[in-house]
Amino acid sequence: MKIRALVAMLVCAGVSFADEGMWTFDNLPSAQMKAKYGWAPDQGWLDSVRLASVKFPGGSGAFVSRDGLVLTNHHIARGSIIRVSPKDRDLVKEGFTAASRDQEIKIPNYELRVLVSTLDVTDRVKAAAAPGMAPIDADKARKERLGQIQAEMAKADSGLSFEPVTLYNGGEYWMYGYKKFTDVRLVAAPELQAADFGGSQDNYTYPRWGLDFALLRVYENGEPYRPGNFLPWTKGGLKAGDLVLVSGHPGSTFRQQTLAQMEFARDYTIPARMRFQERQKAAIQEYGKTGGAAARHARDAVWGIDNGYKRIYGQLQGLKNQDNMAKVAKEESALKAALAENPALTKKAGDSWGQIEGAIKIHRQLLDQILMLDGRGSALLGYAVGLVRWAHDSSLPADKRKDITDESLKTRRDALSRQQNIDDVGLDTVRLRAGLQEALDVLGPQHDIAKILLGPATPAQVLSFTLSGPKPAPVQGVKTPEQAAMDLLSGTKLNDEAVRKQLMEGGNKAVEASKDPLVALARAIEAKARPLRRQLDEEVTAVISEHSQRIAEARFEIQGKSHYPDATNTLRLTYGPIATYPANGTLMQPFTTFHGLIDRYEGWGGNQAAAEGELWTLPQRWLDRLPAVNLKTPYNFVYACDTVGGNSGSPVINAKGELVGLNFDSNMEGQAGYYVYDGATKRSIAVDARAITEALTKVMDGKWIVDELMDAAAPDAPAAGL
Amino acid sequence: MKIRALVAMLVCAGVSFADEGMWTFDNLPSAQMKAKYGWAPDQGWLDSVRLASVKFPGGSGAFVSRDGLVLTNHHIARGSIIRVSPKDRDLVKEGFTAASRDQEIKIPNYELRVLVSTLDVTDRVKAAAAPGMAPIDADKARKERLGQIQAEMAKADSGLSFEPVTLYNGGEYWMYGYKKFTDVRLVAAPELQAADFGGSQDNYTYPRWGLDFALLRVYENGEPYRPGNFLPWTKGGLKAGDLVLVSGHPGSTFRQQTLAQMEFARDYTIPARMRFQERQKAAIQEYGKTGGAAARHARDAVWGIDNGYKRIYGQLQGLKNQDNMAKVAKEESALKAALAENPALTKKAGDSWGQIEGAIKIHRQLLDQILMLDGRGSALLGYAVGLVRWAHDSSLPADKRKDITDESLKTRRDALSRQQNIDDVGLDTVRLRAGLQEALDVLGPQHDIAKILLGPATPAQVLSFTLSGPKPAPVQGVKTPEQAAMDLLSGTKLNDEAVRKQLMEGGNKAVEASKDPLVALARAIEAKARPLRRQLDEEVTAVISEHSQRIAEARFEIQGKSHYPDATNTLRLTYGPIATYPANGTLMQPFTTFHGLIDRYEGWGGNQAAAEGELWTLPQRWLDRLPAVNLKTPYNFVYACDTVGGNSGSPVINAKGELVGLNFDSNMEGQAGYYVYDGATKRSIAVDARAITEALTKVMDGKWIVDELMDAAAPDAPAAGL
Repeated sequence: MKIRALVAMLVCAGVSFADEGMWTFDNLPSAQMKAKYGWAPDQGWLDSVRLASVKFPGGSGAFVSRDGLVLTNHHIARGSIIRVSPKDRDLVKEGFTAASRDQEIKIPNYELRVLVSTLDVTDRVKAAAAPGMAPIDADKARKERLGQIQAEMAKADSGLSFEPVTLYNGGEYWMYGYKKFTDVRLVAAPELQAADFGGSQDNYTYPRWGLDFALLRVYENGEPYRPGNFLPWTKGGLKAGDLVLVSGHPGSTFRQQTLAQMEFARDYTIPARMRFQERQKAAIQEYGKTGGAAARHARDAVWGIDNGYKRIYGQLQGLKNQDNMAKVAKEESALKAALAENPALTKKAGDSWGQIEGAIKIHRQLLDQILMLDGRGSALLGYAVGLVRWAHDSSLPADKRKDITDESLKTRRDALSRQQNIDDVGLDTVRLRAGLQEALDVLGPQHDIAKILLGPATPAQVLSFTLSGPKPAPVQGVKTPEQAAMDLLSGTKLNDEAVRKQLMEGGNKAVEASKDPLVALARAIEAKARPLRRQLDEEVTAVISEHSQRIAEARFEIQGKSHYPDATNTLRLTYGPIATYPANGTLMQPFTTFHGLIDRYEGWGGNQAAAEGELWTLPQRWLDRLPAVNLKTPYNFVYACDTVGGNSGSPVINAKGELVGLNFDSNMEGQAGYYVYDGATKRSIAVDARAITEALTKVMDGKWIVDELMDAAAPDAPAAGL
Repeated sequence: MKIRALVAMLVCAGVSFADEGMWTFDNLPSAQMKAKYGWAPDQGWLDSVRLASVKFPGGSGAFVSRDGLVLTNHHIARGSIIRVSPKDRDLVKEGFTAASRDQEIKIPNYELRVLVSTLDVTDRVKAAAAPGMAPIDADKARKERLGQIQAEMAKADSGLSFEPVTLYNGGEYWMYGYKKFTDVRLVAAPELQAADFGGSQDNYTYPRWGLDFALLRVYENGEPYRPGNFLPWTKGGLKAGDLVLVSGHPGSTFRQQTLAQMEFARDYTIPARMRFQERQKAAIQEYGKTGGAAARHARDAVWGIDNGYKRIYGQLQGLKNQDNMAKVAKEESALKAALAENPALTKKAGDSWGQIEGAIKIHRQLLDQILMLDGRGSALLGYAVGLVRWAHDSSLPADKRKDITDESLKTRRDALSRQQNIDDVGLDTVRLRAGLQEALDVLGPQHDIAKILLGPATPAQVLSFTLSGPKPAPVQGVKTPEQAAMDLLSGTKLNDEAVRKQLMEGGNKAVEASKDPLVALARAIEAKARPLRRQLDEEVTAVISEHSQRIAEARFEIQGKSHYPDATNTLRLTYGPIATYPANGTLMQPFTTFHGLIDRYEGWGGNQAAAEGELWTLPQRWLDRLPAVNLKTPYNFVYACDTVGGNSGSPVINAKGELVGLNFDSNMEGQAGYYVYDGATKRSIAVDARAITEALTKVMDGKWIVDELMDAAAPDAPAAGL
């Protein structure tokens, strides 16, 4: 409550609250918007924006020129930029700007999608479940019906690719039809150090100076694609208080979870993940101190951990916020009260909260054990566990496979095949040691699983315990985590692609016969994990799934579409103003500028000091060319839209339908939004469109691209005139 | 613990921890410093710095030129700048730079002091207390002896002014001799909006762009004073990791409190203060919405509240930090364990923790009542209460006055005399209403004190209750807070200086006879408060004082001077590196620059938007002249020294004894340092010396002053060659 008091203190009358909701395009709360902003999009606006929105693998983007330029985040395109880099160049590090259209580089095996048609198939799907069916059978029937509809639509010669979408946890079923684009070329991307200035430290924070953009171009039949709809680049300004909208693909949210589920996440699952990551990080950093390549590898590994850690840390803070939990409790009470007045719904879901609580109790008993039965931080042990599991599942007769389809087995096999050798077995060893130590500490030395993971000590190891002084062996007759990790990773041959290939081709028989110590341990892990997983599936996951759906259906019957559905990695629209928020004891400025980029660069001592792993250094080209830049140009801004992961690369759009910014992050306070929406502090972070054109023109040799973008811009034209 | 985990995550190897301790100049931990930094000041360095250090009313400063220029904070000199402003000009708003020495403006009634001599009188003072004396008598005897010594020294013709200093809560007694300067003139000060850029919002935060400096000059006999020692202005650089030292006058800290005392502050006294301030602020803001003068007055009042609120909020966060409290508990346990091995000390203080806990229980019972018996947020009621208390105390016969000296009565009378009429009785009314409402809510409507504060309702008021609808009167027969506040402040004549003067001159008789409603209420408040205060004095304050001293003496006997004493508003030295710290989800940059000033200005929309009450606007002169400024010049920096309030204006000094910065604030995380020192996050904030010279030269027309400062600077000369 005291933090709330401070927030209350800092929130002046001028602070606007964010507008909750990731709305489907068919169901925007127009009346609400009009009441607050005096404006809401009409159908033309919505259609234009939807057709200009592009779905990326793992993110979002938008058409921004008549000739098929697509804007997204550098961090969304990064994998592609790596893949198109010539052997002798690192375009991620160097940046890239095509000198002209014919210099654009084709990205292999890349696919972008545009949502062209949406069809509500709720009635047909719901009709598949006969009244009186057992819930589990009803669920299966609905899934089959969805599959039938999808197959039917695929047969029609629409040129579209269809995907079923379940909204409101089963309140609605839709079939979304996408137009796919597979000839996508890299046009421009700044240097990583400009795109990701501040790296993992500045990730999820603000004020911020990230130029996290990349421009690609879509081709069709070898020619630039001319999209029917694109977002004209704004020539106008943008200021605090202005309304903006974001169109994109938020991944998934858990806002419909019950209070008990959120408390379980708060008290058990998130802390357990944090504990694992903290221990892994500490071990990696210790290893990194040995210097040289180890330091480099450690830094990369830490980056990977920090990124996820900050996010769940933010989620945890949100779940620990008493006001947030009170909001969830209140909504839950209201729903239960509404149920109580409706016998049919009471019959359906009245018992569901209790059922979910029961399932959570079982989950709690299983949690620590199941968590320890994985790769324990080691990439190679993780590979071995995946291999054993795949081989075992593949060997099952069809009638014992349950939900395991041939396709899912193929996907898993493909993933295993793509696994590359690791660079640093030393790093893998210290990570495994930390993971084994965690298992020992969490489960206790007498636990079966601890004994399986550590394995019996050799006589020499027992002797070394005895000789190592006053510290007794942690478990009679088993290895220390250090010894176990050393023995496993010095003994394995799995870091050899040929060995892995051989095992995979040999299937379950070869895997069962392998004497490789990691494969042997993985077999033991899987033997222990299998019944636990089965129990988890049957007594926890299935129960929660069933009753979550019952609650969702009851909620949907009561609320209808007055609410928005949880995020499902499908196209949504969210809106809100450019707005400050209270953080770090003050109010955050709505915009940053190039001046601030220099301030943060110089404030850390610049390239000369290269402080904190060079996080705040700048490419030499930037230092050379910044004197020509208009330093007052806005760089990033914060705004009160409701976004989560998956919205990366989403266009930020003004009411005229113009592109004014590029969403690339949200603040740490906003991570709570996976569970609960807190409008006072949740903010999204965007690159200002003006920063992109200024950088392209003055730093990145991309004047011709800006000309293309600006040619398209029509400041006084209506948004949809495309 | 989870916050700690994040801190641990963010703290990379490069983050230096602050060095704890506000050391007296006779007892610097030189061995510790040498071990860590390879250097420690020698006696010459210490003497030079001490003699260059200047004590300001409410703050610190230093001589920085051969001709007596003294550097301090704008916010320390602000009251003086107001006083020297000509009738038609506001030099606080406009800024001021003397065109030449003869244009410097003399500040009336101003006194600066330099600590010239320190004399350890511990033996003489301790000898005053005979063995076996009751503790309360021993305390009195020691105080008398201190007074005797002070009187003796005053008689000697040293030209110095002597003050007793108690260190280590009675472990040591000293007599400090100060040279006083009373001819002090204003030389230069920037505009408030540059000095206090970001205002109350950016107060206690970082990154920061405050040019919080003022330059004064000391004169003697009408000529610029030539100090024997001053700090030469650095011509060299300063960078992250560099060791700096701060010489200044930290006000008071509570680090020696027992765990029970800190828990009481955490759970009761600080939350109660926050509650009062939150309610006051809400009422003031509501009032401010009426616009015009009310908005201005409300803003000023809110500023005053926010400043204090942020500080205690930071303190509370520090006390809620489990690691901090664990540290206190651990130190307390260690001390108790050491005591247990020493029968003499056990006899002295073994019981003292328990005694303090008992006193705290009583304090807890009295707290809410005593807190409500004050001015309740109203300046005029506050004046009336002070008047009644002073008049009553003055009327007491000498033998009943206890600790009340003639001098303290005179001081109180002087303070009452200086009280000015208030500008906005409307504001005072809403504040009083909020204060009365708080009393009603906290004590309940049936409590005696609530009844006293609200007073009996008139028949018309009772009727208006009845007519006002379903909401019943909160207390049968008493006024609502709103009615009470209106009646009191519309009926009083106290906002007339003549009336106040008359009452004061009439003494207790006039005050007792006054029919002024505020005076009448103040009499009732005081009649109720007097016995409660007596109980507090006897059963709480005296007990805690006695036993705190016993614990302190035991601690001092065990630890000696290996530790530093709590701050006592006397000269101390602290040291540490320029260092980042984790906040707002990332790492704070060690320095800021003029670029960042522009970034924060533009990021809020500049003077045109004048956002959030113009907090981040800039004077027109700055906008006109910034193009000529070297924007990469460092502006502010953070460093890991152990400072608290009172250190405002302290010089930040490098190992060569040069002035490199000017302390003006510490971060919010650092406010915990009043109770517990947390080196991971506690940081002091300074203006970089280079920002001052750049601004004086390029913006403030102060080239001649920079010439004087630079003339004095001798980059390669030894520090003490003065």
